[in-house]
Amino acid sequence: MSTESPFTVPHDDPFGPHNLPYGVFRTAADPRPRIGVRYGYRVLDAGAAARATGAPPDLAELLAAPVLNPLLAAGRPAWTRVRTALTAWLTGEAHREAVGPLLVPLAEAELLLPFEVADYVDFYASEHHAVNVGRIFRAGADPLTPNWKHLPIGYHGRAGTVVVSGSPVVRPCGQRRAAGEAAPSYGPSLRLDVEAELGFVVGGASERGSRVAMAEADDHVFGVCLLNDWSARDVQAWEYVPLGPFLGKSFATSVSPWVVPLEALAHARTAPPARDTPLLPYLDDSAAQPPCGLDIAMELRLNGHTVSRPPFAAMYWTYAQMVAHLTVNGASLRPGDLFASGTVSGPAADSVGALIELTHGGERPVELPDGSSRAFLEDGDEVVITATAPGPGGVRIGLGEVAGRVEPAR
Amino acid sequence: MSTESPFTVPHDDPFGPHNLPYGVFRTAADPRPRIGVRYGYRVLDAGAAARATGAPPDLAELLAAPVLNPLLAAGRPAWTRVRTALTAWLTGEAHREAVGPLLVPLAEAELLLPFEVADYVDFYASEHHAVNVGRIFRAGADPLTPNWKHLPIGYHGRAGTVVVSGSPVVRPCGQRRAAGEAAPSYGPSLRLDVEAELGFVVGGASERGSRVAMAEADDHVFGVCLLNDWSARDVQAWEYVPLGPFLGKSFATSVSPWVVPLEALAHARTAPPARDTPLLPYLDDSAAQPPCGLDIAMELRLNGHTVSRPPFAAMYWTYAQMVAHLTVNGASLRPGDLFASGTVSGPAADSVGALIELTHGGERPVELPDGSSRAFLEDGDEVVITATAPGPGGVRIGLGEVAGRVEPAR
Repeated sequence: MSTESPFTVPHDDPFGPHNLPYGVFRTAADPRPRIGVRYGYRVLDAGAAARATGAPPDLAELLAAPVLNPLLAAGRPAWTRVRTALTAWLTGEAHREAVGPLLVPLAEAELLLPFEVADYVDFYASEHHAVNVGRIFRAGADPLTPNWKHLPIGYHGRAGTVVVSGSPVVRPCGQRRAAGEAAPSYGPSLRLDVEAELGFVVGGASERGSRVAMAEADDHVFGVCLLNDWSARDVQAWEYVPLGPFLGKSFATSVSPWVVPLEALAHARTAPPARDTPLLPYLDDSAAQPPCGLDIAMELRLNGHTVSRPPFAAMYWTYAQMVAHLTVNGASLRPGDLFASGTVSGPAADSVGALIELTHGGERPVELPDGSSRAFLEDGDEVVITATAPGPGGVRIGLGEVAGRVEPAR
Repeated sequence: MSTESPFTVPHDDPFGPHNLPYGVFRTAADPRPRIGVRYGYRVLDAGAAARATGAPPDLAELLAAPVLNPLLAAGRPAWTRVRTALTAWLTGEAHREAVGPLLVPLAEAELLLPFEVADYVDFYASEHHAVNVGRIFRAGADPLTPNWKHLPIGYHGRAGTVVVSGSPVVRPCGQRRAAGEAAPSYGPSLRLDVEAELGFVVGGASERGSRVAMAEADDHVFGVCLLNDWSARDVQAWEYVPLGPFLGKSFATSVSPWVVPLEALAHARTAPPARDTPLLPYLDDSAAQPPCGLDIAMELRLNGHTVSRPPFAAMYWTYAQMVAHLTVNGASLRPGDLFASGTVSGPAADSVGALIELTHGGERPVELPDGSSRAFLEDGDEVVITATAPGPGGVRIGLGEVAGRVEPAR
């Protein structure tokens, strides 16, 4: 037996008492998928803790599920109750004896996809990214389309291929047309890329035919995860006009295993960039309090080497605007809906969230410390995206990581 | 008690023994959602029939579910066994006493969404539609984009707003930019439209990272339904460049309550239109036997008046090509995936599947028998899409209908 208390977490641990992110895990000893809450380098078996502490039955039932969806469906008041209970179990004295044995070492936990994804939407909320990519995909035209500053552009992606961090990504095959060729050819993507994004996990449902105002967004957004929107740029370039990205994206989207609750990001809130175009009232957030920009510092690593540091604070559109726009036509929200920010790119050359931007469309490969270089991803490459946000008293809140390795095309 | 046997179905009934479509229903007497099979003007309680006839337990379990998804997941061999059993129960003599009381009058059945939609994809497979709409949305440019004849263009839609026939459709609000205006305005859509489509319901799953060849498509496509892809043309026109349709479509997609199994369409198979552009091998269906075109005659009715008769046989891309393309990048299929054909439009002016085509972008309103005319839909309008396909011996196979009424914007 270790002599160290399982409740001991360093003051500056990014997974300390101010974070308490939710995931789903299993262990070799107990292979049932169950809800876990990360605390330092341990995972609390949350359902078992609810039973052991005599939590109210409705709350215990939410935590006894094999996925987060019932908790997501329960809505903001239940989320607050659960977080309050978790805080008491982990930081109070009353339940130490009951809860201590339920803290599993992180190394023993296999982390699973934390929720069943209902609908997946990907936005395009970074002005820097939209300009950078617009120049590459639509050379000669204005890089920002006329609608860009009026609405958060988005599209639906494939929910069934959202996978948890660590899942391998097979290089996709498909059609692409080489420059100067009249007809497309078929084969493995030659321009496999990543997009470093933040994902927003939707909880409380909304009714079809109704709208969710920006001010109500926090009743419907449970928390955030990191997301890698793997992209086959050659496939995408050939297919995306006129109906948008499809096979260039649908082969895999990776998410981090920990969903950080919105409450844990209270100190990360910041005003979004100044709006230089007047917004329609349902998107006008000039008076929003608290602001819904998020000062989250991201890092993009390729084979262990940091190639970029995308700043989420630079995103033009906020999650509250995304929720308001997503539902303005009466589209309903369901528990388990996932919407992503789009590639997070800042203004600096080393703050962009995709290789296509970092390498200027592949023309200026990035040098790696092993002497190799990359225009796009090679088989065997591993991509890891990490992030932290400011917490109280100088502590950082960890978002963990989303990792994936490229496997050869089949 | 009626003296007529519940098994009596006229020889030419479109829901006779050669059809046997699946749905989910409930009754006032028994409000539990359960699987039903339509037979003439009755609905067989399929789960109860399996129990009453002593069907094998695995088969009975599939039919005891409150949605079609477990049956969809079971795959082609199970689908064949279930259909064989249903045929025996309804047309044989052995089980009449047990099954007769389980045939519920259609009028007593409330028809529900028959399956939980996993991912929803909408294709764009009619050349006539693509040309007609391309001329309106991209005046001056070639109406067919360069990729159109090389791949079935598609995009993901919102699974959470797929609703069953009869569900009201609230007029969506959103942004649209009037001709000549610099900035968009907000309000109810002024160009609400329909798209008459065929939906394909996916059963057998496929593994992420693998491909489904055209020849394997029938192992993964369970059957078809009718689908109305309601569209707000003004919202769509403003938002769709560069990432495709989003809010212009996501407010509602209606499907018919009966999923007609692929087996029932054996006599509808027909060669698709001649391909004038060579196809890459994974899409080359020149030698496909049986062919995967479908000779389905559709009808589009507005307030009871038939405004168009779209011929599905005119569709350029087949469902087998859609499956092969959808998975060519390794994207997986899940039970409950739904993919739609895109608007079914034939070459004739009165064979197009959307008002925007029928009215030439709203410029030539269609006249209705009550003396009114429509450029686009007005509040209170009811749209019904019906279809039949050839069956054996001159019998028609009914696809039923998908209906919806427009409610005023909220």
